[in-house]
Amino acid sequence: LWPDAPWWAGWGSPDEPVRELPPAADALLEELDVDLNLRRTPVALDDVRLGEARLPEGVRDRLERVARVHDDRLSRVLHAAGKSYLDLVRLRAGEATEAPDAVVVPGSAAQVGDVLRVCADAGVAIVPFGGGTSVVGGVAPVRGPFSAVVALDLIELQSLIDVDERSLVAELEPGLRGPAVERVLSERGLSLGHFPQSWEYASVGGMVATRSAGQSSTGYGRIDELVRGVTLVAPGAELDLPIRTRTAAGPELRELVAGSEGVLGVITRAALSVRHKPEIRHFEGWSFPSFHDGVEAFREMEQEGASPDVARLSDEAETELNLALAGAGGAARLGAVYLRLRGRARACLAIIGWEGGQLGVGRRRAESESVLRRRGGIALGRRPGDAWDRGRYDAPYFRDALLTRGVLAETLETATTWTKLEDLHEAVAGALRDALAARATPPLVLCHVSHLYPVGASLYFTVIARQEIGAEVEQWQAAKTAASQAIVDQGAAITHHHAIGRDHAAYLEAEIGTTGIALLRAAKAELDPAGILNPGKLLPT
Amino acid sequence: LWPDAPWWAGWGSPDEPVRELPPAADALLEELDVDLNLRRTPVALDDVRLGEARLPEGVRDRLERVARVHDDRLSRVLHAAGKSYLDLVRLRAGEATEAPDAVVVPGSAAQVGDVLRVCADAGVAIVPFGGGTSVVGGVAPVRGPFSAVVALDLIELQSLIDVDERSLVAELEPGLRGPAVERVLSERGLSLGHFPQSWEYASVGGMVATRSAGQSSTGYGRIDELVRGVTLVAPGAELDLPIRTRTAAGPELRELVAGSEGVLGVITRAALSVRHKPEIRHFEGWSFPSFHDGVEAFREMEQEGASPDVARLSDEAETELNLALAGAGGAARLGAVYLRLRGRARACLAIIGWEGGQLGVGRRRAESESVLRRRGGIALGRRPGDAWDRGRYDAPYFRDALLTRGVLAETLETATTWTKLEDLHEAVAGALRDALAARATPPLVLCHVSHLYPVGASLYFTVIARQEIGAEVEQWQAAKTAASQAIVDQGAAITHHHAIGRDHAAYLEAEIGTTGIALLRAAKAELDPAGILNPGKLLPT
Repeated sequence: LWPDAPWWAGWGSPDEPVRELPPAADALLEELDVDLNLRRTPVALDDVRLGEARLPEGVRDRLERVARVHDDRLSRVLHAAGKSYLDLVRLRAGEATEAPDAVVVPGSAAQVGDVLRVCADAGVAIVPFGGGTSVVGGVAPVRGPFSAVVALDLIELQSLIDVDERSLVAELEPGLRGPAVERVLSERGLSLGHFPQSWEYASVGGMVATRSAGQSSTGYGRIDELVRGVTLVAPGAELDLPIRTRTAAGPELRELVAGSEGVLGVITRAALSVRHKPEIRHFEGWSFPSFHDGVEAFREMEQEGASPDVARLSDEAETELNLALAGAGGAARLGAVYLRLRGRARACLAIIGWEGGQLGVGRRRAESESVLRRRGGIALGRRPGDAWDRGRYDAPYFRDALLTRGVLAETLETATTWTKLEDLHEAVAGALRDALAARATPPLVLCHVSHLYPVGASLYFTVIARQEIGAEVEQWQAAKTAASQAIVDQGAAITHHHAIGRDHAAYLEAEIGTTGIALLRAAKAELDPAGILNPGKLLPT
Repeated sequence: LWPDAPWWAGWGSPDEPVRELPPAADALLEELDVDLNLRRTPVALDDVRLGEARLPEGVRDRLERVARVHDDRLSRVLHAAGKSYLDLVRLRAGEATEAPDAVVVPGSAAQVGDVLRVCADAGVAIVPFGGGTSVVGGVAPVRGPFSAVVALDLIELQSLIDVDERSLVAELEPGLRGPAVERVLSERGLSLGHFPQSWEYASVGGMVATRSAGQSSTGYGRIDELVRGVTLVAPGAELDLPIRTRTAAGPELRELVAGSEGVLGVITRAALSVRHKPEIRHFEGWSFPSFHDGVEAFREMEQEGASPDVARLSDEAETELNLALAGAGGAARLGAVYLRLRGRARACLAIIGWEGGQLGVGRRRAESESVLRRRGGIALGRRPGDAWDRGRYDAPYFRDALLTRGVLAETLETATTWTKLEDLHEAVAGALRDALAARATPPLVLCHVSHLYPVGASLYFTVIARQEIGAEVEQWQAAKTAASQAIVDQGAAITHHHAIGRDHAAYLEAEIGTTGIALLRAAKAELDPAGILNPGKLLPT
């Protein structure tokens, strides 16, 4: 029934064995004071606690006339949450009482409109659902003021609507997953080049609705930069924006749809800029004497227009952990890196990658590298780059393993100007350390810079700590609140590419002010007067 | 009183002599069947017809408490229109009965808010006024349902608020003109790099409000791509968006402010990405065997990421006229070009330019040129490029001269995908030719491609014809309607960088649909509930 969905309580296919942590991780767990014998496995699906399905029978009948409707246990559990740490903690413990009353599967864009109208009439909340990979509570089945909530799964909208190979633009349906997008484009020698860590399951509609950024977005652009046309279906209206370059025809409404998070409507078509499939992909490791040197090298590279497609700079802590895990990992595939870095106590590792034609990559590499060298960078060759490339989608699998071992493993991201980047790094890392130390679970806080812009860059934090068993949610909330407050206090973006969802809704006002909130509410009132679309997300409640 | 304003009936300072057409233009005028002895000079300022200033005395008093208020003849005439062909035809004939009842000049962003509140209370329409260079009726003093209208001139808001040299972002007040922006940034070794043809008079606020594109925007980006933060003051609210990279914090409201054309609020601050001042600027002429070959060369160059900062490709007609004017112009500065092009009957001239550091320009030139050569381009050296650079702001001066000689001279622009670009070129040129031939004033229609994007490009048309004396407005309207309808029929953008204003308001719905219009109206209702801001612009009436 749900062939493209990851396992209900974590990542990866239900048929795959759960991945184990590498033996080298034991040292890490010991450092975090984790009981090495602990194994916290999820409950069985049958033991998951679900509320009663409360979709009124009359509504169900009306929905079945325009779409498939499922309310079996697996369907409801699979749509009960996204894939945040918080979601997984709850699901693994058997907590899914928030699950939707039904899952509705329209077979076409027209049926999406039909479903919206039925639900608007009946006062049933709708959660648009693509890949379900939100890590910010973006698909939480919140009822809001309504008595029932359904998940609107777009899995059947998987067509490549059209491709204009001369103008390099592809019109895609929202249900296409990352791999399917690349597969259908690849047949025409094209690529979207959009590879978020969730790529295996993330959908086109979800990418656009959340303004996702992929690991290659420094070069390829974020998804919101690739949207050339879009169709948004709302209960009482449809916004259909044709394919355009940038124009001067008033405010850019494509930018109102991108990031609308299912609150303003359901994206049924996205016309995205694509590229010719790269002939070659070249990833390298680099080291810098310090995080500061690496940041300065990245800044100059970006501001001189010499950036690669992938650019990631780990701070000292992330560098150290990466090397420790790799160094003791048997194959010691990063051994060479380790040795070369040893002489530099505060050294930081960077991954730099280029994609494209042989000639272009060669030229662009030379450009990037001349800046990096000028700033004290040392090339470590392709092995660290290839290792990163092989493991680029691994993190959510290892998170499952960490959860089993009783470890809190959360990520969060922000962005700011180059001028404020290092202060932001310290403030957020400090806030996370303080908040978790105060609960007697001192964490490891890792960070890397990614997604370069002339004006600034993104910081991506990973926090790992011993789980506070029995108070997992409170522990997470304490860390999340501390980090979010530090971000707001620094005047930085509450999210760079994870979106607002439910987890950040209270911080949107710090980002866009009361007037910004009022404008979004005005747009919502216009498109969704009944307020049935994705309650509790994006806008503060 | 208005030191930075161009002459009331045209372009250039009131102290400068009006430019004459070069003698070579006589052949052109003859071809258009223009009476070579005709001289149509504008009426004297004292003979301009103004309506009675109808600002109620009580409102005037209240406004004077928060800003300077002028209602003398020159002030009202200077704010009676923008600088479109239609505006100039009317002004030169002494028609300014639409002039505002007063011109209000706030001295600070806070005073802007005060003025808006006074006018909202009193039910007086406001036209935000920057450089007044709109060519689409964007500053027409339309009263709408109100009994009075004032122009809100932002001339006193000329501060550089802040510069972050590390993050390359400058916060500017809206009244700064193009040259002033470059002057204040130049002191810090920086440049905005935004050079629309109206640069000498265009203001920062106007640029952002209209999504302007400069002649170097292929490289530097359009103004809307440079906006990192912005403040919009509306009668009942203020939207203050801090400096950000792109983020995932919901819809991008900066893109709602860019292009809002004074209808949603008054821009009082724009934080724009800037660059290091270029060490060198290098402009070249190129020729292509045909317009099609040139288009294909530009497309490949752009899609391979090898575009220069300036890229303009004239069609056959524009090429021929440029060469004819230059070739007989005495200095025959383009003589060499002419000779080299002669052997190629349908040859088209292109101008290509790079700006930046010596090294970067050298590298980027090599890249661009390898694509251009592959597509049959022939380099013509720097002379045509330098000639273009010297004359890049000349067109509005020559338009004044053409008006004096009884010539209709209008420009309009659009954009579409690469796939549809050549059809659009033919359709619009054909529509203009047919519409004016039907009035017995067969035109010359010239066009160039500029502003390259991976998905498409802009077309910029110039149309020149004998004026239909006594029916100048009807003649212009016939041509404008025909061209606009052709654009809409081709599914292209009604404007690429001139904005919607009054002239395109009827076509916005073809661009964004009824739902798009409804969303903009909802935003306006939120920010300007009394509806006093710039009536008759952007939104269809």
